[in-house]
Amino acid sequence: MDARIIGWGHTKFGRLEGKTLEDLIQDAAAEALEHAGISAGEVDAIFVGHFNGGMVKDGFPSSLVLNFDEGLRFKPSTRVENACASGSAAVYTARTAIQAGQARVVLVIGAEKMTALDTKGVTEALMTAAYQAEEAGVSFPQTFARFADAYFQKYGDQSETLARIAAKNHANAVNNPLAQMQKDVGFDFCNTVSDKNPMVAPPLRLTDCSLISDGAAALVMVAEDMAQEAPRSVKFRAGQHVNDYLPMSRRDILAFEGPAEAFARAYEEAGVTVDDIDLAEVHDCFTIAELLVYEAMGLVSRGEGPRAIAEGLVYRDGKLPVNLSGGLKAKGHPVGATGVSMHALCAAQVTGEAGGIQKDGAELAMVFNMGGSGVANYCSILEAEKTG
Amino acid sequence: MDARIIGWGHTKFGRLEGKTLEDLIQDAAAEALEHAGISAGEVDAIFVGHFNGGMVKDGFPSSLVLNFDEGLRFKPSTRVENACASGSAAVYTARTAIQAGQARVVLVIGAEKMTALDTKGVTEALMTAAYQAEEAGVSFPQTFARFADAYFQKYGDQSETLARIAAKNHANAVNNPLAQMQKDVGFDFCNTVSDKNPMVAPPLRLTDCSLISDGAAALVMVAEDMAQEAPRSVKFRAGQHVNDYLPMSRRDILAFEGPAEAFARAYEEAGVTVDDIDLAEVHDCFTIAELLVYEAMGLVSRGEGPRAIAEGLVYRDGKLPVNLSGGLKAKGHPVGATGVSMHALCAAQVTGEAGGIQKDGAELAMVFNMGGSGVANYCSILEAEKTG
Repeated sequence: MDARIIGWGHTKFGRLEGKTLEDLIQDAAAEALEHAGISAGEVDAIFVGHFNGGMVKDGFPSSLVLNFDEGLRFKPSTRVENACASGSAAVYTARTAIQAGQARVVLVIGAEKMTALDTKGVTEALMTAAYQAEEAGVSFPQTFARFADAYFQKYGDQSETLARIAAKNHANAVNNPLAQMQKDVGFDFCNTVSDKNPMVAPPLRLTDCSLISDGAAALVMVAEDMAQEAPRSVKFRAGQHVNDYLPMSRRDILAFEGPAEAFARAYEEAGVTVDDIDLAEVHDCFTIAELLVYEAMGLVSRGEGPRAIAEGLVYRDGKLPVNLSGGLKAKGHPVGATGVSMHALCAAQVTGEAGGIQKDGAELAMVFNMGGSGVANYCSILEAEKTG
Repeated sequence: MDARIIGWGHTKFGRLEGKTLEDLIQDAAAEALEHAGISAGEVDAIFVGHFNGGMVKDGFPSSLVLNFDEGLRFKPSTRVENACASGSAAVYTARTAIQAGQARVVLVIGAEKMTALDTKGVTEALMTAAYQAEEAGVSFPQTFARFADAYFQKYGDQSETLARIAAKNHANAVNNPLAQMQKDVGFDFCNTVSDKNPMVAPPLRLTDCSLISDGAAALVMVAEDMAQEAPRSVKFRAGQHVNDYLPMSRRDILAFEGPAEAFARAYEEAGVTVDDIDLAEVHDCFTIAELLVYEAMGLVSRGEGPRAIAEGLVYRDGKLPVNLSGGLKAKGHPVGATGVSMHALCAAQVTGEAGGIQKDGAELAMVFNMGGSGVANYCSILEAEKTG
């Protein structure tokens, strides 16, 4: 029996001073349970997506959530981690628990508290997700700068395209009240190196990088035979998880093979092509990553990523709007929360509950969440189901 | 369809200089695959149990294992964590993946590299698994010293019993070539505070504490319809996972409620009582924990734990031998590896492959693996199945 998403919760993303990791987890969980019309006592199992890497001292997030309600006591709870795809890892293990018949109601939470450290501290924490034997000391901006360098060498300088991706996502975030930066900074700002938009790792500027955020998101999933009674029901037309080698030296980085494999398997599972997808929330940890995703998802061919921007394919009114939420770029990227947030927002799109970022008539919404530089790859295609 | 364990691997535990986390993971994986007669290319999914908490920089263990064999590329791999029960968390999520029909062959690995840090560093890393809002700064020896204090106040000083538990486990480890300390240190040594056996956190002495270890263990599990062709097959008569509140202030610590709940559910699932169990590998992170487990498992009543030692119930030739492997106390406790090691050694017992620590005729072997002080609790009962 497959799982259905029947409710979700989502804190605002941002610098949430005064909110601990425990607060974030419990806020999102409470909202998701209420949205689903499920009491804590009905939950059979809990999965928590959380990266950490030293960003907070809390090293036992699976049991932090139990404090929230006595009804959760003695329930099995498990933390899962796959770097920046930890949130999707939680969604997938939760779905598996329902498919296995081990649980009929599952609470999924993704959460991260990043702003307790300064930027240097966060950068060092994220660096632990690189291959230590070869890549120790290489920051994530530097890693993705390598991708950009390689891309520019092969296909010409695309700095302007990257700036347009950043500007698009910022413009989209204006309509998302949960976003960390609800601000349209404009293309010129993103395309100009300045005191406020310095080079972080050439050719990547500050506006090419996602944000450092606190936040959490949660889902309630149930066995499909329970979903008919739910206020809404969203099913997985596809859910594919593909890991690739950790060392960059073993991968053809521009081919983005892990992501491409995840997309291909997801389309096959759903029996659709990219043309059938109404919108996508994808992992724009850096603008170059979103550019490479346009190609990996098959929207355009290898080397033609810039055309997706130039022809307006990925804008709000384009053929396949990408990151209507603002993406990691402007919505924010609390690592463990990101994959759960993507699933929550895509579920909201297909049930028509996405508010200001709603795409009218959205039927198929796609999630692409990635850990590392194409190392842990999750691609889901969500669709609403009639209830009641 | 349920899962069967058909092979395992187990590095020696100890201070393994020159072995990285990646080496440990790959050594255990290779041995398990060979033992099961499975090639890497046949694996459908991978689960890695790993705690870390800052003990090594490697923050992406799920993809470290892929380097080991090209056949693993593009397979889904997930790290799971539940503090010192992270290994069992991996075993359970792997079993679930098979039950869900998502995978027919799963590789499970538990690994930890602890000795890269000094004792102070390891202690601080483990402290992250406490409830930071109330227990920050309280080390795990101090946490379990509170349990011992409370026990001694209620039932009288049991220092001698604790020393006998330590001495038993050390004596058992003499027959386990994988143990970190294959040495019978004797009751007198354990019972005497000395330069070599100082008080760590009164009333707990050094010999009341488990070891700081490097090591890994791995299992191959397959769908039960594949197990008939396997060299051996071990089934789960029970597998129960129960989380409890993280803060000690919310728990009746001497009742050890989370562990007791896990045992009770496991007996019910298996349709057995403690009298039917032939041996148990249990979580003796501290000797007081093993004492409390005697009660939580129902071998003796509340407050009668010392009788299990005094009457010899838990010794090699007793009614229910506990920790024939030497336990965390003498086998060692590489955190993420421990739960997988327990499952591997119990599987070896019921298939008659446990070598020097074999209990003759063992049919039902029980695992109890615990994260925190009774916070994440896993209880499995394993039984062999005829193959071929």
